[in-house]
Amino acid sequence: MKIQHQTDQKAYSSDGFIGRYQKLVRDTVIPYQYSVLNDKAEGAEKSHVVQNFINAGKAVRGEDAGDGFYGMVFQDSDAAKWIEAAAYSLHNFPDPELEKKVDDLVDIIASAQDEDGYLDTYFTIKDKDKRWSNLLEAHELYCAGHMMEAACAYYEAVGKRKLLDVMRKNAEHIYSIFIENGHGGFPGHPEIELALMKMYRLTGDEKCLELAKYFINSRGTDPDWYKRERAARDWTVWGNNGEDPDYQQSGVPLRKAVRATGHAVRAVYLYTGMADLAAETGDKELYEACRRLWDSITKRQMYITGGIGSTVIGEAFSVDYDLPSDTAYAETCASIGLMFFASRMLENEVRGEYADVMEQAFHNTVLAGMQLDGKRFFYVNPLEVVPGISGKAQTQRHDLTQRPSWYACACCPPSAARLISSFGKYAYGENADTAYCHMYAAGTVSFANGMKLTCETEYPYGFTIRYKVSGNGRLALRIPHWSGGYTLTQNGNDVSAKPENGYVYTAVSDGDDITLTLDDKPRFVYASPKIPRLSGYASVCRGPLVYCFEGADNSGDVLSLRLDANSGIEVIKREDAPDGAPVLKVRALRAKAQDGLYSTGKPVYEECTAYAVPYCTWGNRGENQMRVWLPAKI
Amino acid sequence: MKIQHQTDQKAYSSDGFIGRYQKLVRDTVIPYQYSVLNDKAEGAEKSHVVQNFINAGKAVRGEDAGDGFYGMVFQDSDAAKWIEAAAYSLHNFPDPELEKKVDDLVDIIASAQDEDGYLDTYFTIKDKDKRWSNLLEAHELYCAGHMMEAACAYYEAVGKRKLLDVMRKNAEHIYSIFIENGHGGFPGHPEIELALMKMYRLTGDEKCLELAKYFINSRGTDPDWYKRERAARDWTVWGNNGEDPDYQQSGVPLRKAVRATGHAVRAVYLYTGMADLAAETGDKELYEACRRLWDSITKRQMYITGGIGSTVIGEAFSVDYDLPSDTAYAETCASIGLMFFASRMLENEVRGEYADVMEQAFHNTVLAGMQLDGKRFFYVNPLEVVPGISGKAQTQRHDLTQRPSWYACACCPPSAARLISSFGKYAYGENADTAYCHMYAAGTVSFANGMKLTCETEYPYGFTIRYKVSGNGRLALRIPHWSGGYTLTQNGNDVSAKPENGYVYTAVSDGDDITLTLDDKPRFVYASPKIPRLSGYASVCRGPLVYCFEGADNSGDVLSLRLDANSGIEVIKREDAPDGAPVLKVRALRAKAQDGLYSTGKPVYEECTAYAVPYCTWGNRGENQMRVWLPAKI
Repeated sequence: MKIQHQTDQKAYSSDGFIGRYQKLVRDTVIPYQYSVLNDKAEGAEKSHVVQNFINAGKAVRGEDAGDGFYGMVFQDSDAAKWIEAAAYSLHNFPDPELEKKVDDLVDIIASAQDEDGYLDTYFTIKDKDKRWSNLLEAHELYCAGHMMEAACAYYEAVGKRKLLDVMRKNAEHIYSIFIENGHGGFPGHPEIELALMKMYRLTGDEKCLELAKYFINSRGTDPDWYKRERAARDWTVWGNNGEDPDYQQSGVPLRKAVRATGHAVRAVYLYTGMADLAAETGDKELYEACRRLWDSITKRQMYITGGIGSTVIGEAFSVDYDLPSDTAYAETCASIGLMFFASRMLENEVRGEYADVMEQAFHNTVLAGMQLDGKRFFYVNPLEVVPGISGKAQTQRHDLTQRPSWYACACCPPSAARLISSFGKYAYGENADTAYCHMYAAGTVSFANGMKLTCETEYPYGFTIRYKVSGNGRLALRIPHWSGGYTLTQNGNDVSAKPENGYVYTAVSDGDDITLTLDDKPRFVYASPKIPRLSGYASVCRGPLVYCFEGADNSGDVLSLRLDANSGIEVIKREDAPDGAPVLKVRALRAKAQDGLYSTGKPVYEECTAYAVPYCTWGNRGENQMRVWLPAKI
Repeated sequence: MKIQHQTDQKAYSSDGFIGRYQKLVRDTVIPYQYSVLNDKAEGAEKSHVVQNFINAGKAVRGEDAGDGFYGMVFQDSDAAKWIEAAAYSLHNFPDPELEKKVDDLVDIIASAQDEDGYLDTYFTIKDKDKRWSNLLEAHELYCAGHMMEAACAYYEAVGKRKLLDVMRKNAEHIYSIFIENGHGGFPGHPEIELALMKMYRLTGDEKCLELAKYFINSRGTDPDWYKRERAARDWTVWGNNGEDPDYQQSGVPLRKAVRATGHAVRAVYLYTGMADLAAETGDKELYEACRRLWDSITKRQMYITGGIGSTVIGEAFSVDYDLPSDTAYAETCASIGLMFFASRMLENEVRGEYADVMEQAFHNTVLAGMQLDGKRFFYVNPLEVVPGISGKAQTQRHDLTQRPSWYACACCPPSAARLISSFGKYAYGENADTAYCHMYAAGTVSFANGMKLTCETEYPYGFTIRYKVSGNGRLALRIPHWSGGYTLTQNGNDVSAKPENGYVYTAVSDGDDITLTLDDKPRFVYASPKIPRLSGYASVCRGPLVYCFEGADNSGDVLSLRLDANSGIEVIKREDAPDGAPVLKVRALRAKAQDGLYSTGKPVYEECTAYAVPYCTWGNRGENQMRVWLPAKI
């Protein structure tokens, strides 16, 4: 059974857990990022992205390009991601002032498009003759993909098609290069595949579908392609010589792939496009490849927080079971990409595991990427920080103890903003007669099939989810893998349906009250002994939330703690809890200080109480120790 | 109280634990390395070092330099280290054939010395005008230092002074450059400091002492020196720009130093020279600086195996308590250098802790560096390997599961060979009336003060150490920190002396039988909770030997093991034990396999027996898992 995430599906949360995050994005993140894009944010690194488009416009008109190009080769995409985030926000909450800002920016972007449809400020400003000569590193297709996503989102949000027309013309241009003129090759950083699928679904433009097929089907059929491309030019952006095709996911034809490899964000963006294409065309072989890659990620290479890409070296997947807590990379964007992949897998097949992982990635790594005030962001999401070591040791320079305000490579903050703003696209799905709830959040959602749901819940802090139904049809509610049991009532009567592949289904009528109660018991979670770094360790979770132990709640020292996993876990309220989240209280043992590095003196443990807060809220109370995993008493 | 390691002290082991290693070096390592130096070893990387000297000789005589220079900028030092190892071996075991080989090589080296005393094949062959212009990277003083050590060792061993004369002339040249002509600067890779002290002690040449003082006292007084040196030249060897003075131990004047930083081998070589100078000149302030650096290393930055320099990035010290088992660097040479430092600290002050660390580094990391057949070597000494991750994960590419045969940068194997051959220099010390035994080994030693000891022991596999004394005087025996108790008898009568600073002293007469019995009980050792990676873990040790758990003895899987540290540890004999070493048998728990990466199912443990072998013998039975530390049941 397939489901679709309809493009005109409308969902918003006015309050509740997600609602507060969406409000933060609307009130703080989007305005702040707008000021960054326009180089007006104090203390932030210069972006210059808007000026790049202005300057490229001048170049297109044959004028002097002013102060030229500044920033990363993929700087354009920052503007695209901001427009996309703004569009999703506008979709839910109209805001004429914000819309005007987007319109103005769209005008600037449109002015930078060349007559032939080409749009990329780096090459337009710097050297037109070098277009398409460095697919490996230069991100032209990546930037085009992000702008296509922005165009689709903005059209869906407010019905304005100027940017969509710009990007259709751009797609025509790319089609002429790769399909009509047989340029060869595929994007060094995948992204356009999933964007082309969005364009196709929105516009019906078959060229977009054909291009997506080409990029996916050609990839890996010629593992030396990038090496030859490199040999044919005398310049490079970062010195990537194309000699490690696995790093580019181009070592084997994608249909034959069995392992998720290389740069993690690129990988999941690519796999998202694959799953999109498989769902759209019913390509079973391609879906089977997606299944293998899904398993490779989620069964052997994923942190408990839904973080992926464990190594800083190349921001990449490592080998199976290499999941260090302290030197973790686990980029925010990689978990966002994993959510994309999961949502597209759900469009192929309704399986609870896809939504489970989507929820796990969102509620832990993605949300941890943003400070609770919306002003600071993590790019890297370790599962353990120890001030004095984290951020200081050469191997942990990337693992910061506190979120910095902005990054020169500003990839994660705008991506988190667009994801949070479009939470409804991931939380809900539908087909002709059924409305699917994959994730739970307070708010209202309207489905294309005519149903509408209004949800009240404190989820993930509370576990009762109440729906008021409007319209008739079938409702599918996901029972998460972690929920030891659940109750479901319809107008006060028990519904006895059993879950199928992780979902319970019930026929609903206009005016129905539906109440789902999930398991609110906190739980200890243990890692496979195959993960060397975690043997003998345990963590605590509740619902979709992974918890962590911070020094702030534990006398400043979580390194000497051992969990007593034989005891229970109590849920308590504490005024000083970040985000007002429920705090978990567990019995623990604390090792007394010992002399020297190594000692034959058996550690003396004192019984104590340890407190854990949701991982997504860590680092909001100043620099302190943090650990998701603690050694556990047997 | 000071002690000296007399240059003419003679010590050898004919059998026993050390004797077998020395025999291996004599029979296998030295001949094999000789063939490597001469490019005659099958399967080894080309060395070219001897040919470099031949070619440099041609250049000195104004002839064409043949096939020029090949190898690392410090290639010369491989020949020096080999001569030093051969010399120590010859000192204990005369071998005319080997001596002839050394003589021939000395002739070749002497032929490469320039008229002004300069000796370095890299610059002599490649570009004489660049001499002394890249102290930061080019290793001229490092190579000179190693050749000085070789010259001293060979003179001491067989009384031939040709190489010593070459190196005295070289020292004169260096003196003229740095002292007379005020060139400025200090060695990028320290080594010459300790070598100059050896030269001074052997020859009484005050210029050597003055040079050593200059290099030590000037270092760190001008933290930007290397940056200016870099700016003044248009070439570099590896791109080091001198901008991180701590990496070069040149950020603060050495007398003010409080932390061991930077490249670990360079650091301990430097600190050895400092301690040498402090002992020789009675420089208390310098010794206090050495004490701080010693504490910085041994109390906050040292593995239980005596490994130091925990990070691969720069082969360097990390921050305090960052001691990962799996990504460890812990270079063999760094532990050798730590032994140098410890031995010189003993010459300043007799403290058991110096000898304890010296023994710990030797019996664990240094010996682990060499395969039991003497043919393969570890450069890097992890405390955990997991095939599939170690050597494969990007962050663990340096942590191999098996010793390779030789390295392009062949620093560790010849250094291990010279260390093992000269074990007696570290095991024994003396002053006017006392013979010191710092480490225990079967064999015979003659002291300059007229005493002679013949020792019978199975140490470190057995813990009874018997001395037959010849001559009269005082005997000082170290009581290791790990020995819970000891008994000491003299001609069958208990000696009631109590240890002072880790040593027991007893007056001895010609013909005395002395028997020391140390604690043979294996023990559990726990790490400080300040080491994040080791919280909740324990290891097992016996005597100076750290043990490790290998898959070979534990059903192929040590990741699912937990130590039951409440039980005893049994010492058993097993025929298949590497080196025939005693095996430790402990009660343990083995976690049953669990489904998935993360599970709420509490791990099910089965009681089992786990077996550990000495860490220094690991990796001798094919590729398998290895762990020094296991999670421990409380």
